[in-house]
Amino acid sequence: MAADTPQGPLNHSEQSLAMAVGAAMHARDGASQSLGMTLVSIAPGHARMTMTVRADMLNGHRTCHGGFLFAFADSTFAFACNSRNENTVAAGCSIDYLAPGFEGDVLTAEAVEQSLGGRLGLYDVTVSNAEGSRLALFRGKSYRIKGEVINESLDPALSNSTS
Amino acid sequence: MAADTPQGPLNHSEQSLAMAVGAAMHARDGASQSLGMTLVSIAPGHARMTMTVRADMLNGHRTCHGGFLFAFADSTFAFACNSRNENTVAAGCSIDYLAPGFEGDVLTAEAVEQSLGGRLGLYDVTVSNAEGSRLALFRGKSYRIKGEVINESLDPALSNSTS
Amino acid sequence: MAADTPQGPLNHSEQSLAMAVGAAMHARDGASQSLGMTLVSIAPGHARMTMTVRADMLNGHRTCHGGFLFAFADSTFAFACNSRNENTVAAGCSIDYLAPGFEGDVLTAEAVEQSLGGRLGLYDVTVSNAEGSRLALFRGKSYRIKGEVINESLDPALSNSTS
Amino acid sequence: MAADTPQGPLNHSEQSLAMAVGAAMHARDGASQSLGMTLVSIAPGHARMTMTVRADMLNGHRTCHGGFLFAFADSTFAFACNSRNENTVAAGCSIDYLAPGFEGDVLTAEAVEQSLGGRLGLYDVTVSNAEGSRLALFRGKSYRIKGEVINESLDPALSNSTS
Repeated sequence: MAADTPQGPLNHSEQSLAMAVGAAMHARDGASQSLGMTLVSIAPGHARMTMTVRADMLNGHRTCHGGFLFAFADSTFAFACNSRNENTVAAGCSIDYLAPGFEGDVLTAEAVEQSLGGRLGLYDVTVSNAEGSRLALFRGKSYRIKGEVINESLDPALSNSTS
Repeated sequence: MAADTPQGPLNHSEQSLAMAVGAAMHARDGASQSLGMTLVSIAPGHARMTMTVRADMLNGHRTCHGGFLFAFADSTFAFACNSRNENTVAAGCSIDYLAPGFEGDVLTAEAVEQSLGGRLGLYDVTVSNAEGSRLALFRGKSYRIKGEVINESLDPALSNSTS
Repeated sequence: MAADTPQGPLNHSEQSLAMAVGAAMHARDGASQSLGMTLVSIAPGHARMTMTVRADMLNGHRTCHGGFLFAFADSTFAFACNSRNENTVAAGCSIDYLAPGFEGDVLTAEAVEQSLGGRLGLYDVTVSNAEGSRLALFRGKSYRIKGEVINESLDPALSNSTS
Repeated sequence: MAADTPQGPLNHSEQSLAMAVGAAMHARDGASQSLGMTLVSIAPGHARMTMTVRADMLNGHRTCHGGFLFAFADSTFAFACNSRNENTVAAGCSIDYLAPGFEGDVLTAEAVEQSLGGRLGLYDVTVSNAEGSRLALFRGKSYRIKGEVINESLDPALSNSTS
């Protein structure tokens, strides 16, 4: 299909695959969408998202409920650990809170792959505000299961049929 | 010394205080409310909540996004660790996922205090579905800060004046 | 071979296998031995060990160095998660300290399997002193790799030949 | 001001204090000594140690028992979080294993302070071998208690009397 586009060779790179996976995951992920998360970038083993703290995310102290910081980090972790198009789920996660988030804060979460071996992966996610202050450090352990996130042979973005 | 009023002993008990704290926290906590969490019971060092998995909580695998399981456990933890009316925040939390949750599942989270010493507390929260299967084990570390959750002398639920 | 001996059914039970695995692991595990750990009991998904706090395990506060409490819990976890004779390693662990240990304290660690699915397992280990006070709560995630701990067909402990 | 003594400005710096604390802690810490740990450097919120994997640290797989990797990281964490001469203990720790250690490996642990606020601190420790491969990632939460590690007014290393 997209054979006539010059990006063909690029489409077969790991980077293109990561981007196609990211697009497909985000489209299916109603939870991340309903929380207003945006996928800013994705690459093999890496993802970055943004989310704005809304009024309905505040707890009784008028700061962002830890559960939403977690969900934000967790989603970013999910994009990073699925970025190679191998179905991967979270086995366990931990989060440490460093500073509070407030309504209107535009948060960024950045996930970095620390390790990948066998079916297990380890990812660190840092959640920061616009000033660069770190609000939370998240560490996620991933476990690869069967299947792929997207079907490479069917996905037009990944097709390279040049005829 | 309102010990002679009928409500006195009860109202001033730790249990009554926990219940008043729970009511006040839940009223202020828009995040827990917007996720449909119900506080079923609260006692010193203990809390139990329920939450139904909604369509907008599902991830791309059509199972409950881990972030919402976390938020649910985290809220239950917050009620338990604030139940003695001393302002307490989460320092760090971890969660391990045992089984998936599906749309419509009525989940229960139960928080148990494992340790309380100095300003630090440790709480275990178990998230289960209606069949009693455990979906997640959560462990939270709490840190007591200054202040009280509710002002005992002002809170009508804790006052003995019946007029 | 000796399938006709009375011990046959017992020897081939999961419990017997766990005990044979425990004996073999302990024999090979110089680290646990050098720390004076004793395997008190082992069963599928479960293990219990004891260890006495020695002078050379104390830190500058004259309490048991957290690393030895961890090593003690970690070993007990290892016995529990290998008890089905499938080679299993630790993927990650966490420990929370509740109370200090002192020289001469006889500690008990008890490992309980919380979950086992796919290659992943989750185990909780509680470290207590002789008075029953809990010193530490440990949570370990296990990952099953290839191979068996002992070769069932060759291991004399699992053979029935009594002569 | 002590500006007139050569050592004065240095001795009173945070760096000198950290070094004096490190020396005092190491002298008292029989556990770290018996494991052959060496304190390579210490600074406010930071510490680096080395340890060689010995035969008596091996488990049944002939790799370094996870408990010793933990103890090594935990000690490095302890030096880092006490480096400001305020008595500080571990509240909880987690470790993730990335690769095995073998007999004779010279390991390095580096502790970095990620956060310090109120009585709580968060430290990340990376354990690597001589080739720079990371064997384990450790995260420790610290809790400041009363007292100082060393008595500044009495410790000769911190005194600047030049006579």
